[in-house]
Amino acid sequence: MSRGFFVTLEGPEGAGKTTQLARLEARLRAAGRAVTVTREPGGTPLGTRVREVVLDPAVDIEPLGEFLLYSASRAQLVREVLRPALERSETVLCDRYADSSLAYQGAGRGLRLPLLRQITDEVTGGLSPDLTVLLDLDPALGLERAARRGQPDRLERADLDFHRRVRQGFLDLARAEPQRFLVLDATRSADDLEAEIWAAVSGKLAGGSSPAAP
Amino acid sequence: MSRGFFVTLEGPEGAGKTTQLARLEARLRAAGRAVTVTREPGGTPLGTRVREVVLDPAVDIEPLGEFLLYSASRAQLVREVLRPALERSETVLCDRYADSSLAYQGAGRGLRLPLLRQITDEVTGGLSPDLTVLLDLDPALGLERAARRGQPDRLERADLDFHRRVRQGFLDLARAEPQRFLVLDATRSADDLEAEIWAAVSGKLAGGSSPAAP
Repeated sequence: MSRGFFVTLEGPEGAGKTTQLARLEARLRAAGRAVTVTREPGGTPLGTRVREVVLDPAVDIEPLGEFLLYSASRAQLVREVLRPALERSETVLCDRYADSSLAYQGAGRGLRLPLLRQITDEVTGGLSPDLTVLLDLDPALGLERAARRGQPDRLERADLDFHRRVRQGFLDLARAEPQRFLVLDATRSADDLEAEIWAAVSGKLAGGSSPAAP
Repeated sequence: MSRGFFVTLEGPEGAGKTTQLARLEARLRAAGRAVTVTREPGGTPLGTRVREVVLDPAVDIEPLGEFLLYSASRAQLVREVLRPALERSETVLCDRYADSSLAYQGAGRGLRLPLLRQITDEVTGGLSPDLTVLLDLDPALGLERAARRGQPDRLERADLDFHRRVRQGFLDLARAEPQRFLVLDATRSADDLEAEIWAAVSGKLAGGSSPAAP
């Protein structure tokens, strides 16, 4: 069976994931591709409910519980959205995926990575992105950008040290899988980022090798 | 540090867990014991939100996700309610706990028990009940009792074969840990059950050995 192409966008709040996701979607559609766009947590009725809970500052959630909630949302997303779209040979764009859990609850909150990886393997059935775009940003800048957009949510209000650990977690994941990751400096212009992401995606879709990272 | 006593009630919907929990609580209070009563899923703000989601017939949840949601609720309950109450040397009564996940998502839905046990150990930090009362009931009778109380929820509407596997799952758990489990025939009168549960609890609280199962 023909299989689609699975792209995830990762990085902190305020790095520009939403903007780049929309631009990449537009490029893909202009190129005649069928595209499914989704996000984590969210993307399914269960995911939407989970999203409301994890982003509610009034609900206290310990780190392992937080990871399990994201994982539950992910399990449903894989079964209900990601696999069906990939089996229809679509290009799937997902705003955050398992790498976020490894970075935020693993590197950030200190949960053991082997445990998180094992549960993630169960939850995803081994479904890994073909390409992960990491929009890397200094946490201090990211928080400033997010604050400018309005009320900070629970993640955004956590302390700067936490966000520094998260950033390092993302960079460690990228270093471990250089073929999968495209790491971009999120302070570059949106147009530059768009062009570079498109080069990587179109290259891979054309059957090319690794993303053209300069 | 002195530690309290942890009792869980398990069994299908309609077996009388709520009634027996209230009666046991009254007996304990009459005996001058400090008691904390809670339930799964629920018992914390997070647990209440998770409960709303898992019991909502409009939200589709695949089995592993269901287990992870219950586990997230459990992690919070252990940290926020169970451990603090036990550290205050209280008697803690909990309507459902990890055995329900092993029976419903393991035996019932077919998820692998070793995986569920491993995640449960992480989630509970190894906190296991001192006594688990299993109110055993033929599934056909249990569904009939639950239906009489009003609108069936998602669990109750699932098919009878599922509930038969769940029942067997509970009985297998009880057989594996006879010192922890008190298995009672839920068709007996509420007064009989109350007396037998009280004999087991008061015996264990008095420093006795295993529950006096006839």
